[in-house]
Amino acid sequence: MLGNTIGRMFRVTACGESYGDALVAIIDGCPAGLEISDVEVQKELDARRPGTSPLDSPRQETDQVHIFAGLRNGFTTGAPLGLIIYNVDRHDIHVKQYFDVKDLVRPGHAEYTYMIKYGNYADWCGAGRASGRETCMRVAAGAVAKKILAGQGIEVLGHTCECMGIKSKPLTFDEVKAHYRKNHINCADPEAAEKMIARVMEIKDEGDTAGGVVEVIARGVPAGLGEPVFDKLNATIAHGLMSIGAVRGVEFGAGFGVSKMKGSECNDIPHIDDNGKVRFKTNKAGGIEGGISNGEDIIVRVAVKPTATISIDQDTVNMATMKNDRLSAITRRDPTITARLVAVAESMVRITILDHLMMWRGYDAIQTFEHPWT
Amino acid sequence: MLGNTIGRMFRVTACGESYGDALVAIIDGCPAGLEISDVEVQKELDARRPGTSPLDSPRQETDQVHIFAGLRNGFTTGAPLGLIIYNVDRHDIHVKQYFDVKDLVRPGHAEYTYMIKYGNYADWCGAGRASGRETCMRVAAGAVAKKILAGQGIEVLGHTCECMGIKSKPLTFDEVKAHYRKNHINCADPEAAEKMIARVMEIKDEGDTAGGVVEVIARGVPAGLGEPVFDKLNATIAHGLMSIGAVRGVEFGAGFGVSKMKGSECNDIPHIDDNGKVRFKTNKAGGIEGGISNGEDIIVRVAVKPTATISIDQDTVNMATMKNDRLSAITRRDPTITARLVAVAESMVRITILDHLMMWRGYDAIQTFEHPWT
Amino acid sequence: MLGNTIGRMFRVTACGESYGDALVAIIDGCPAGLEISDVEVQKELDARRPGTSPLDSPRQETDQVHIFAGLRNGFTTGAPLGLIIYNVDRHDIHVKQYFDVKDLVRPGHAEYTYMIKYGNYADWCGAGRASGRETCMRVAAGAVAKKILAGQGIEVLGHTCECMGIKSKPLTFDEVKAHYRKNHINCADPEAAEKMIARVMEIKDEGDTAGGVVEVIARGVPAGLGEPVFDKLNATIAHGLMSIGAVRGVEFGAGFGVSKMKGSECNDIPHIDDNGKVRFKTNKAGGIEGGISNGEDIIVRVAVKPTATISIDQDTVNMATMKNDRLSAITRRDPTITARLVAVAESMVRITILDHLMMWRGYDAIQTFEHPWT
Amino acid sequence: MLGNTIGRMFRVTACGESYGDALVAIIDGCPAGLEISDVEVQKELDARRPGTSPLDSPRQETDQVHIFAGLRNGFTTGAPLGLIIYNVDRHDIHVKQYFDVKDLVRPGHAEYTYMIKYGNYADWCGAGRASGRETCMRVAAGAVAKKILAGQGIEVLGHTCECMGIKSKPLTFDEVKAHYRKNHINCADPEAAEKMIARVMEIKDEGDTAGGVVEVIARGVPAGLGEPVFDKLNATIAHGLMSIGAVRGVEFGAGFGVSKMKGSECNDIPHIDDNGKVRFKTNKAGGIEGGISNGEDIIVRVAVKPTATISIDQDTVNMATMKNDRLSAITRRDPTITARLVAVAESMVRITILDHLMMWRGYDAIQTFEHPWT
Repeated sequence: MLGNTIGRMFRVTACGESYGDALVAIIDGCPAGLEISDVEVQKELDARRPGTSPLDSPRQETDQVHIFAGLRNGFTTGAPLGLIIYNVDRHDIHVKQYFDVKDLVRPGHAEYTYMIKYGNYADWCGAGRASGRETCMRVAAGAVAKKILAGQGIEVLGHTCECMGIKSKPLTFDEVKAHYRKNHINCADPEAAEKMIARVMEIKDEGDTAGGVVEVIARGVPAGLGEPVFDKLNATIAHGLMSIGAVRGVEFGAGFGVSKMKGSECNDIPHIDDNGKVRFKTNKAGGIEGGISNGEDIIVRVAVKPTATISIDQDTVNMATMKNDRLSAITRRDPTITARLVAVAESMVRITILDHLMMWRGYDAIQTFEHPWT
Repeated sequence: MLGNTIGRMFRVTACGESYGDALVAIIDGCPAGLEISDVEVQKELDARRPGTSPLDSPRQETDQVHIFAGLRNGFTTGAPLGLIIYNVDRHDIHVKQYFDVKDLVRPGHAEYTYMIKYGNYADWCGAGRASGRETCMRVAAGAVAKKILAGQGIEVLGHTCECMGIKSKPLTFDEVKAHYRKNHINCADPEAAEKMIARVMEIKDEGDTAGGVVEVIARGVPAGLGEPVFDKLNATIAHGLMSIGAVRGVEFGAGFGVSKMKGSECNDIPHIDDNGKVRFKTNKAGGIEGGISNGEDIIVRVAVKPTATISIDQDTVNMATMKNDRLSAITRRDPTITARLVAVAESMVRITILDHLMMWRGYDAIQTFEHPWT
Repeated sequence: MLGNTIGRMFRVTACGESYGDALVAIIDGCPAGLEISDVEVQKELDARRPGTSPLDSPRQETDQVHIFAGLRNGFTTGAPLGLIIYNVDRHDIHVKQYFDVKDLVRPGHAEYTYMIKYGNYADWCGAGRASGRETCMRVAAGAVAKKILAGQGIEVLGHTCECMGIKSKPLTFDEVKAHYRKNHINCADPEAAEKMIARVMEIKDEGDTAGGVVEVIARGVPAGLGEPVFDKLNATIAHGLMSIGAVRGVEFGAGFGVSKMKGSECNDIPHIDDNGKVRFKTNKAGGIEGGISNGEDIIVRVAVKPTATISIDQDTVNMATMKNDRLSAITRRDPTITARLVAVAESMVRITILDHLMMWRGYDAIQTFEHPWT
Repeated sequence: MLGNTIGRMFRVTACGESYGDALVAIIDGCPAGLEISDVEVQKELDARRPGTSPLDSPRQETDQVHIFAGLRNGFTTGAPLGLIIYNVDRHDIHVKQYFDVKDLVRPGHAEYTYMIKYGNYADWCGAGRASGRETCMRVAAGAVAKKILAGQGIEVLGHTCECMGIKSKPLTFDEVKAHYRKNHINCADPEAAEKMIARVMEIKDEGDTAGGVVEVIARGVPAGLGEPVFDKLNATIAHGLMSIGAVRGVEFGAGFGVSKMKGSECNDIPHIDDNGKVRFKTNKAGGIEGGISNGEDIIVRVAVKPTATISIDQDTVNMATMKNDRLSAITRRDPTITARLVAVAESMVRITILDHLMMWRGYDAIQTFEHPWT
């Protein structure tokens, strides 16, 4: 397993399983002198934590995070940050439940692919490293990135913009901020939120689960971030977002809508604004042209699949007998993970933007030295 | 500019501008003993070459590729491959055209972001490194990956599955293969192709351009490719595809459709097939679960924006005067790049799958040594 | 701080300070199915642990390691391993000692460079991340590599081959193995060891410390490991070894001796041995030609500087007052770290060889598929 | 072959064989606005070029470099630089000479290891990618780094400080600069140079070759460069230098001499200089403490083995017959490569320092934003 590090200059490495002792993240590249505390990181984690809403899994995890390395007297020292969350809700009864079905492939889960890749040694307990639980550490690292970005005037917010076909009305960054995290579905349009929640509760009652779309908007990203060609800002953001287990699609700005557009409709027209600065009249590009931020809001949406675990019996196969088999309904689950995924998606966008910011500052410092015009 | 290398084990590094002397790619990690020739790589490049269809730009580039390093007697030596394409159609008249508008931001292009990032030194000629011309080297490298993958039983094919709202009917891998590259729009459904072409020609006559969707299907990918967590197979494929200039969205399998699905609809149900192997009854996941291939076809679609260059006057700004200005219609352009993008998208998928294959073989060889069951 | 990860396929990421809560390493790329336990890793750590010999610092650290992630039922699952060691000997009295001199640059230590790089936020306590204490995690990760390499028939052993001018006689791998870790100085030549220890004890009595040379020999490394040009096997081993705080030089085989040799003396002559295999009559190259292992023992030596902390007053500067100042003798220190460095050097060699082995297996698997002759 | 890229922020990727069409380097990360020309790069290449001194191989290569990408009107555009050198002296007669002995392992060369790694497909002609010829591209890339570093006040110079036991007297940076490249052996001590040359000519007459030591000094490197732990400045410089084919050892400052030193002798004592700045009275550390530059000159030495090709018959094996065989004297060779290696070693040090400078600027820019004291 080799995909546990992300980033080039701001690097996050993580480990830990759903039913192991603890989850840990090491953050390499955090500048010295940043004031940060367990409490601040905790606040972000609480937004992702299960068991706080009727739309979530009833698993009781306190998700108490502790920064055990890289801090002295409340400020980062320049050393890598180490963050740890101990797993607490892993009682024998739950472990036994997983053990009892460990040879059954749970549809929509990663058991089969893990078994193929790692053989009988793959962790069968709570999906191991493939569990949504690993996203805790994305959120913890994202909290650190959030604090650094705030110091640079960059804010990143997400919300559920669609769920089971119910769409929020189009919202600006300020509108999202005004209704941020105000309801269980994390939709910033209160009317749409109400409908979404009602629909999810209906589906929950059927024993089923619901998909959705999460939108993330980044404001204050200076023009110039992103590396041309392979490491475009959108390419690396897409990498980070698509690495979240439940995500099946990523689109920027007008997204898949561009396939129906003419060039004259899709091009964002620049103009000089009242402050004498270049701005764009529309934002079909989602704030990125040629892989580089253009100073407009960065807008990205991800498609979130419905929770794979459902309270309905399903056909499946048994990997021990290599025969068709049947998986019984499972009750401990999230009716939708869309709402909880908001914090995860925000975090991945923050981590990636910060990584680019640090790369860009590295070049720019050298460039500026050479010529004064930048 | 730091994003000119992609991959960990099969690594492609590229350079060269639209109106520079030449484009070059260096491929690191190509195994020794592969029989390959300029002719074979050329065949793939010809599928991307402009000037061969009424839907393309009339730019006349022969795109003659030469492998100048890493080969001896027609076989790779294990040394990095060096591939070069000299730019030939860069007559003074075209260079002058670009020079005349070098201070104008061309809407939908990367000029503005490049100017912000690189200052007045940014290459104004033919969009420099932001030109679609850089994709030549993606295709050249993809041709090498294609040959290696063929030796492993893996085939990757793409086609235009949607254009300006006109959709091809759903097609299997075999159906795409049967009608592969048969028409100017590269759509494998002949009836839809006809409609798409007619619609693009209409739009062309308006001086405008058209967007579309390209689908890529990979067959024969063994279960087990992809690294969990940050370097999931879908995450890295998305990275590669989103790094293509005109792409605005990427989705796998049911894609954004999952947002309207219930868990019971979205889960792919496994069963034991007639050969005693595990297969899935549906492929909503697009062949990837938990970031790892599951043995089904890998299915991915990308949203392609309409060509930014249009034959219609557009408002814009002049970066030298910092005033609003007007950009005249430009005639040398592709009515749509969707058809040409097929070869590029296939190439990125091939490069990424091969990279994972080599990573996986590295682990697996060590794993297998330890225990016989894999 | 960005240098906390090493390796491409077998990757070690670490964090934790000398006087922080804990040290952690995350090992990415460990194959599934490896049987390993805390006890096995502990055994290697005990070889590095201070306070066990008169040549060591009296700091009392138990260095109890626990594998908290990546294991289930005693076997690796393919998930990243997480290893943790809690710091126990960090009583207030020691912290206060560091606090009292926190503005003084301790000669031979990294305070000054850390202060310059990280400002007043740099960790002043026990040298923070620059402490030799971080090498715990190198050894812990090396223990995992050792176990995997053993399964591949590769053994790596080190010993102190020189100390304050006293040299061990030239020793083969088997001779080193026969007298491995038999004395406080970890020298495999018992006579030389006795002299070395006597000399170090004399120097200790002067309040001073002693330098040395550690030799590491790797046996059973198959020919073919190492990537030509920039990532030669020797280049990456040198990288790993030179990253150990106290190392000032690295040499392979005849090492700096080659500067006095003629080509006819330096070339290793190949011949066909009794088993019909190619072997070399000498090993001036230290088992590596052109950056690739040639099947002979890999032999590398590192120069270890004397412990910087001494029980003698030293001139220095005070960074708070920016005036010259005086640092008093410090009593808690290692008379030499050469003996303890053996375990660290072995670990870095193991980690690097394993990384190359996994890379090579990845290529080779693809190569072999293409042509049968490898 | 995977080791053809070096660096994280200033990245050099290279390809090309000794007897292929051309050598190419792609430099990723070069800031925009740097004025540079073929002529400037050529000047550095000329210092490495063979055939200009009686101590060199008589191979006639003009080594004419051309920057074919990344430049417009003499300034870098921010795009990756592409540099190409065509091989010209590869007449059939030389190729035939290599062909005739292609199955013989040339002692001291990489044939055997390449054959093992790449099978019969390995390039037998002029050592392919293992040839010293690949160092052209290190020097070309180093020339670009040199220009950028000059803009930052950093100078890097090398010289032959030892050859066959004859040592130059200890020289400061200024002394080396005063006698830089003044004689065939590139030794900055004229008296020692004369003796070295006489000794090499004697050895040449015996048909043999000579080893040596090259010292590189970097002046003006600001304190603060280098990443703690695995990517220490010395570790990465050692990586780069040890990746040069003929290098067998690397040492910094007092180097292997530390093994005979007491702590009180080895520690560099800081003091406040006349300008009120912290300086060190000695430089045993070679300008690096804890892996980070301390503002003193960076001093590093590499052991260079004698040219493997000699004009004396040697025993060897034939890989086709797998029998012992005999390799005849070869006449086209360098009596020593030490003098030519100076330019290569300087280049690797320049590339690595620049890479760290750009990393550091990236962090520092973020850090400074947060707190004003840096």
